[in-house]
Amino acid sequence: MPTGDLYDYRLVHSMRYLKSPLFPVFRRLGATSFLWYNHILHAVDFEGQTKDQEYWAIRNGATLWDVGVERPVEIDGPGGFALMDLLTPRDMRKCAIGQCKYTLICDENGCVVNDPVVLRLGENRFWLCPSDSDVHLWAKGVAVGAGLRATVKLADVYPVQVQGPKSPDILLALVGDRIKTLRYYWWMEAEFPGRIPVIITRTGWTGEVGYEVFCLDNTRVEEMVTLILARGKPLGLIPAGPNHARRIEAGILNNQSDMDLTTNLYELGLEWQIEPKQRFIGKEALERIRRDGIKRRLVGFEVDGEPAQHEFEGPWVVYKDGTSVGRASAFVYSPTLKKNIGLAMIKIEYTAPGQRIEVQRLPGEPRHKAAVVTLPFIDPKKEIPKRRLDASTRS
Amino acid sequence: MPTGDLYDYRLVHSMRYLKSPLFPVFRRLGATSFLWYNHILHAVDFEGQTKDQEYWAIRNGATLWDVGVERPVEIDGPGGFALMDLLTPRDMRKCAIGQCKYTLICDENGCVVNDPVVLRLGENRFWLCPSDSDVHLWAKGVAVGAGLRATVKLADVYPVQVQGPKSPDILLALVGDRIKTLRYYWWMEAEFPGRIPVIITRTGWTGEVGYEVFCLDNTRVEEMVTLILARGKPLGLIPAGPNHARRIEAGILNNQSDMDLTTNLYELGLEWQIEPKQRFIGKEALERIRRDGIKRRLVGFEVDGEPAQHEFEGPWVVYKDGTSVGRASAFVYSPTLKKNIGLAMIKIEYTAPGQRIEVQRLPGEPRHKAAVVTLPFIDPKKEIPKRRLDASTRS
Repeated sequence: MPTGDLYDYRLVHSMRYLKSPLFPVFRRLGATSFLWYNHILHAVDFEGQTKDQEYWAIRNGATLWDVGVERPVEIDGPGGFALMDLLTPRDMRKCAIGQCKYTLICDENGCVVNDPVVLRLGENRFWLCPSDSDVHLWAKGVAVGAGLRATVKLADVYPVQVQGPKSPDILLALVGDRIKTLRYYWWMEAEFPGRIPVIITRTGWTGEVGYEVFCLDNTRVEEMVTLILARGKPLGLIPAGPNHARRIEAGILNNQSDMDLTTNLYELGLEWQIEPKQRFIGKEALERIRRDGIKRRLVGFEVDGEPAQHEFEGPWVVYKDGTSVGRASAFVYSPTLKKNIGLAMIKIEYTAPGQRIEVQRLPGEPRHKAAVVTLPFIDPKKEIPKRRLDASTRS
Repeated sequence: MPTGDLYDYRLVHSMRYLKSPLFPVFRRLGATSFLWYNHILHAVDFEGQTKDQEYWAIRNGATLWDVGVERPVEIDGPGGFALMDLLTPRDMRKCAIGQCKYTLICDENGCVVNDPVVLRLGENRFWLCPSDSDVHLWAKGVAVGAGLRATVKLADVYPVQVQGPKSPDILLALVGDRIKTLRYYWWMEAEFPGRIPVIITRTGWTGEVGYEVFCLDNTRVEEMVTLILARGKPLGLIPAGPNHARRIEAGILNNQSDMDLTTNLYELGLEWQIEPKQRFIGKEALERIRRDGIKRRLVGFEVDGEPAQHEFEGPWVVYKDGTSVGRASAFVYSPTLKKNIGLAMIKIEYTAPGQRIEVQRLPGEPRHKAAVVTLPFIDPKKEIPKRRLDASTRS
């Protein structure tokens, strides 16, 4: 019988876990641990490197991540626009060719199927860079059920993220001055030295200036990564894993932990996604929720005490005056705020900033005193990632 | 820089991995390692126990597995039957209330979305016990797209499997003589001692006589497990993880490794699922494939040499006369056949039994000589799992 902690177990391999073309590349760069995301292995930790080092590289230099797990779902065909517009509360007419949108995909209950960044590649052609759920099955099911003339497939493309204040200089060294004109949430085609074809978006999961780079030739991903490292290292770039501290500070949500098929857009504070339009999946449900109000909402919280671990194994229970009032889905140490911060879905009556709550990992363990705070923790206007890089750019 | 094997890495935790009510129960029973399946943690290895021990328990005694990852997808509502029948090539009119069917769910290309065991609970009510993909998103997408009056949701129910020749005696001790009348691929409601409500199916993933037990009260899963162990241990039952050796011997396929959205039913030898009916998703594509023929097909293969590891990290490459002709998705030691066996999808011209092929893990490593064989490896008529337990049962 095991005598240790309930959570002290090993995770083991399965043939079902896919390896993208980036797997061996990041393995050779020193990635020592991986997790599972969208059926694909995802590099997390790097030999001899702490999450604190990675955090300050994101804030002051740059980091390079394997986000092959965001393999795009490609929508195409004559009914491509109709399908994309049906799938989301956002008005996709406002997404020009060349533009990207952070796009909630809701089910018929107004709850979260996925929250991809969508690239509009053409009149009817879109890439959805998904978080962790089989949103391609949802989109394809809707298309087949509705008889739309749209195709939905997983593209054979695996992006990386280059994030941090030095990322513009790194991309500039690789594709030239044009990168300065790439605005926040737009994309461009480019070539890396040696004619490596790429698509670059100005998007990311950090709240810092950053890019995602999609190599369009899988035989050349290692060359692409080598070039980014060669140009980036002198500017402070390191290969790294996604940084929860930075994304939680920025109030960026993580599908399947902060939200899922049981949470609706109002509970998540994402009602700004709902734009006036005639028809989309979940419209009636969301109108009903708006009318009736919500019973719980996502909040931030702050906790004093020892720095928390970077990888959170939850959910934790949230208490108010000894009674359970919700669950915490994130808990991490913020090196900028110098305190532990987290995200929790709690009863609406306790969501006002300043409310005192408690959070607990397992029954019988200590309860940490916490205070509810407004999201995001830093940079509410996203001034950091939106920073203009070229004064001549149209606003 | 790592100096070891490309594959010598660690898997780490994420808040996205869910724990079913069975997680702490199996953790306390000695489960030391878990993998990820349908977003849920799945018990694999047990303290001080080998896969060989588990194999012989399945063949001669019984094993108890946590298959909470097969949390059912529930289809219901006035359009429930119409949806279920649209989702699969099988004729669901032939699935009576009380019956179960192994059911391929195909996309519009005749390829595999999922392969659940389906329980027909009512005229319009079904449980799909899914393999590893978000088939609930597919089914819901089809229902919403087609405007069917059907609901699709994940039930809050987490089954266990009790498999092996002693499993009927164990269930008999728990629910009485009625278990003898439960035929292969039927289900029944029952109560465990102490009035624990359960649904029992005569199904499983072993090719042996076996059952799945769905506890209908999540506050009582630990009691249910304790009762199964108390009745089972004297008959040789042990808690265990799924056994690939036994499922591969039986020719049982594993979604996301042996098949996925790129493999069609003919390539998998699953064309027997296609029954004459007017309409189902994938019908036109499958008719076209039947007419045009296939270019590759799933085969079994046998390899001499040292016993292979139980957990397979692939895919491996299959060679014929030095040229790549496909991929192997399973490779394991069969204690019954006393040789290594596997599954591979290879070019149709090399699929005849007796063909000599070679399989290889990574470039530069040894190639193992292998011979193509007919599937399944043992018990082609499924006489073992279908064994009649009560002479009075209708056939």
